[in-house]
Amino acid sequence: MAKMIHSMVRVLDEARSLDFYQLAFGFRIIERLDFETFTLIYLGSDETPFELELTVNKGRTEPYQMGDGYGHLAVSVDDIEAEHARFTEAGLAPGKLVTFERDGALFARFFFVTDPDGYKIEVLQRHGRFL
Amino acid sequence: MAKMIHSMVRVLDEARSLDFYQLAFGFRIIERLDFETFTLIYLGSDETPFELELTVNKGRTEPYQMGDGYGHLAVSVDDIEAEHARFTEAGLAPGKLVTFERDGALFARFFFVTDPDGYKIEVLQRHGRFL
Repeated sequence: MAKMIHSMVRVLDEARSLDFYQLAFGFRIIERLDFETFTLIYLGSDETPFELELTVNKGRTEPYQMGDGYGHLAVSVDDIEAEHARFTEAGLAPGKLVTFERDGALFARFFFVTDPDGYKIEVLQRHGRFL
Repeated sequence: MAKMIHSMVRVLDEARSLDFYQLAFGFRIIERLDFETFTLIYLGSDETPFELELTVNKGRTEPYQMGDGYGHLAVSVDDIEAEHARFTEAGLAPGKLVTFERDGALFARFFFVTDPDGYKIEVLQRHGRFL
């Protein structure tokens, strides 16, 4: 049986991305591997063994094209209102806090934020199926 | 602290994607939510609570653009050679099985496979940091 272990995105500026993921989500470097033409940085937290793998291709300066297929990485948090306020104060420009009902019951409370390369991250209140 | 809980990709054909993810990785539908203009399908396995969220936008027929930023979702498996043979036999057209050394030691054994919409999935032998 296959186990999902990480998601990989390409980023231009390692320091800029590390600052963002640390400030926004508290992710830290689990491992950093430097190769001749690229660097791999595995980010994670104590909450889950799943990791975000950043690939930095050395010498690349042209912004990556996001396309319209890949959607987002989702994270859950304990207190979405506090996080939304903290993101706003930190200048991370979060989107609007949305309450999404389904069949008259709360399905999800969430907002989106965009990382320095343009990848979307959905921040969800821990509730229902989003734990 | 934020916890990574799922990754979302948009797909055109629900049945085609479900067949692929079931056959390739043994993922099953954890939850399927139908809305007026879209359907969300959460796929997973017993190996990890992390899920793959498929979004099907109703009426969309134009293939999604993959861009060059998003890389892949990675999964780990117990026996990469057996899986590579099984993928080949099942007509999933896996890429070449690659052995990647670093400083003279095995770093990773892996192959890539492409899902029906064009998303890459990296299949890694459980070894070292890829558990």
